[in-house]
Amino acid sequence: MIEYDRAPPEVRAVYDDIMATRQTDWINNFWKALAHHPTTLKRTWDSLKQVMAPGALDPLTKELLYLAVSTANGCDYCIASHTAAARKQGATDAMLGELLAVIGMASETNALAKAHQVPIDDRFGSPG
Amino acid sequence: MIEYDRAPPEVRAVYDDIMATRQTDWINNFWKALAHHPTTLKRTWDSLKQVMAPGALDPLTKELLYLAVSTANGCDYCIASHTAAARKQGATDAMLGELLAVIGMASETNALAKAHQVPIDDRFGSPG
Amino acid sequence: MIEYDRAPPEVRAVYDDIMATRQTDWINNFWKALAHHPTTLKRTWDSLKQVMAPGALDPLTKELLYLAVSTANGCDYCIASHTAAARKQGATDAMLGELLAVIGMASETNALAKAHQVPIDDRFGSPG
Amino acid sequence: MIEYDRAPPEVRAVYDDIMATRQTDWINNFWKALAHHPTTLKRTWDSLKQVMAPGALDPLTKELLYLAVSTANGCDYCIASHTAAARKQGATDAMLGELLAVIGMASETNALAKAHQVPIDDRFGSPG
Amino acid sequence: MIEYDRAPPEVRAVYDDIMATRQTDWINNFWKALAHHPTTLKRTWDSLKQVMAPGALDPLTKELLYLAVSTANGCDYCIASHTAAARKQGATDAMLGELLAVIGMASETNALAKAHQVPIDDRFGSPG
Amino acid sequence: MIEYDRAPPEVRAVYDDIMATRQTDWINNFWKALAHHPTTLKRTWDSLKQVMAPGALDPLTKELLYLAVSTANGCDYCIASHTAAARKQGATDAMLGELLAVIGMASETNALAKAHQVPIDDRFGSPG
Repeated sequence: MIEYDRAPPEVRAVYDDIMATRQTDWINNFWKALAHHPTTLKRTWDSLKQVMAPGALDPLTKELLYLAVSTANGCDYCIASHTAAARKQGATDAMLGELLAVIGMASETNALAKAHQVPIDDRFGSPG
Repeated sequence: MIEYDRAPPEVRAVYDDIMATRQTDWINNFWKALAHHPTTLKRTWDSLKQVMAPGALDPLTKELLYLAVSTANGCDYCIASHTAAARKQGATDAMLGELLAVIGMASETNALAKAHQVPIDDRFGSPG
Repeated sequence: MIEYDRAPPEVRAVYDDIMATRQTDWINNFWKALAHHPTTLKRTWDSLKQVMAPGALDPLTKELLYLAVSTANGCDYCIASHTAAARKQGATDAMLGELLAVIGMASETNALAKAHQVPIDDRFGSPG
Repeated sequence: MIEYDRAPPEVRAVYDDIMATRQTDWINNFWKALAHHPTTLKRTWDSLKQVMAPGALDPLTKELLYLAVSTANGCDYCIASHTAAARKQGATDAMLGELLAVIGMASETNALAKAHQVPIDDRFGSPG
Repeated sequence: MIEYDRAPPEVRAVYDDIMATRQTDWINNFWKALAHHPTTLKRTWDSLKQVMAPGALDPLTKELLYLAVSTANGCDYCIASHTAAARKQGATDAMLGELLAVIGMASETNALAKAHQVPIDDRFGSPG
Repeated sequence: MIEYDRAPPEVRAVYDDIMATRQTDWINNFWKALAHHPTTLKRTWDSLKQVMAPGALDPLTKELLYLAVSTANGCDYCIASHTAAARKQGATDAMLGELLAVIGMASETNALAKAHQVPIDDRFGSPG
């Protein structure tokens, strides 16, 4: 873990931008781990900042989606950090409860569709 | 694939409820495959209907989440069917483009967090 | 795909053993693809033959387990080949229907347990 | 975690049914976590109870299949809980040893079949 | 698929850079699909170009690693495109054969280690 | 965990071969867990020894590939053990940093290619 105090300038610059963007005064462990490879740190942060900015989807919806993918991918750290981030964006217990129900249900039907090798209906067209 | 015409009564009852609930006149292949095992068909539909009903999260958000999980789980059929369902709920090209960007970014950071075995920050607490 | 007729002797020896062990007169595509790397072909077949032989678990149970893992791992080829193998060992439609129900249910609760980061109960002890 | 003593009536009703069905006097953590969302708790338990009941497959086989899927999906909690459940249904060390060998072998050949993009043999037909 | 002829200027600029960097005269389908969302196209290409450039690891090793991850993640398109890319970087049949053997073996032992919930040896330290 | 002192002869023979092959004086936990099922222990070790021996790919490259697959498969134990093994074969911090960048990037593009269901370009041919 690379702490701010012993971080080289290019790492500090990213840490400063993270704290300014998120309006917070601390850096979570994910970034301190990435800082071992400063080019990966900077590229990943720049990409994340762009992707998670408000757009056609609002920040709360994006956090819920991030949490859904992180759960499907089985990333414990990401589940913890994006649950916290979703709550910060306004997710309620009821929303998170329904999110988990959707994740569970999707996982079940994903498995059933794969098991049956269901052919894609013509009406769906190509997802493109 | 069990078509409506040769379906037994308990399968027809589920098909009828699917068409009524979705206000449509056709059944997609997923259900026709599940119909080989009528108890699984009924249980899966009843659960899906409950989970996807409007609640603390709106139907469009639920469809986007379903699509995110289906992509992470690599279910081709589910990607096609839930892309169609999301569009029916009002998803625009811009929304789907941002959804994919979030899925991609989450997949990258999920892998990086796992690779680094990043310890969970105390501040995140337990996701419960 | 390496067909029998143009296969080198060490590949033919494996093909012969596959056909003799399975009491069949053809080789499925999986082995013809592995034959590009004869040491992998031989090692994989020898291992599979040992693992799938009757033991504390009977051959049908082993095929159902193989199919369950292949579905969870999303291997289309393996789902097709092990569905056929399970039927050859006596799997009925009812068995396969229940197998899929278990796969679906496990996938759902796997996702829910990960999402909740459920701590392991002391009573379960270590799986060893 | 929602303990029995502070659970609302609809949660207690599910806990009571779990203990009666399993002939035990305790509730494992998975259900206590789900209880944050009582409709998910009830739906999941009702489904699990239906799916795991004896049928064309016996309870021990179903538990082994559940464990196989949970391992492939990488759910630590589920591996622990279903190893315990399998032992309760009569799984011996030898059975679990062979189960793991099948899981390992299937994972290897799943990866090899995907890597080779092996085309499905016509003889296998469609898994339906 | 967004073809070069009907691509907007910001997409053409990326296509031009891809062709110049790879010293080729065509664009593969992956980029034509991403082009529906030009910011994702540009960000993904810029990141890929940076990550795959020669560094402490040579381009062939990077392509083999990319192929290994793509196989583990079950991405058919990526397996096809990175097999071609690896061959362009000099991968021989023997190398690809050994790569697949490693992927298969790792998949097997990954599953076995998860199934046994093997505790990490103190000597390994933290992967950081 | 089966320690050397209380291991039966066929397990000791494998432990001795592991230590001789790796020129080390200890056995890591993975093998001690597999030793509960001696035939799996022996088969797995014999296979691993064959697969990881120097060939068309050097031992360092093989360890990096093993680590990449283990990360994609989310095996914490394997990430720790193969990070240690890669370092023993000469992997530097810079190499591991680039390896992680490739793993992350591949995971992102794997997800994007699946989400878009990108059709495979004719020029790539079949990966065979």
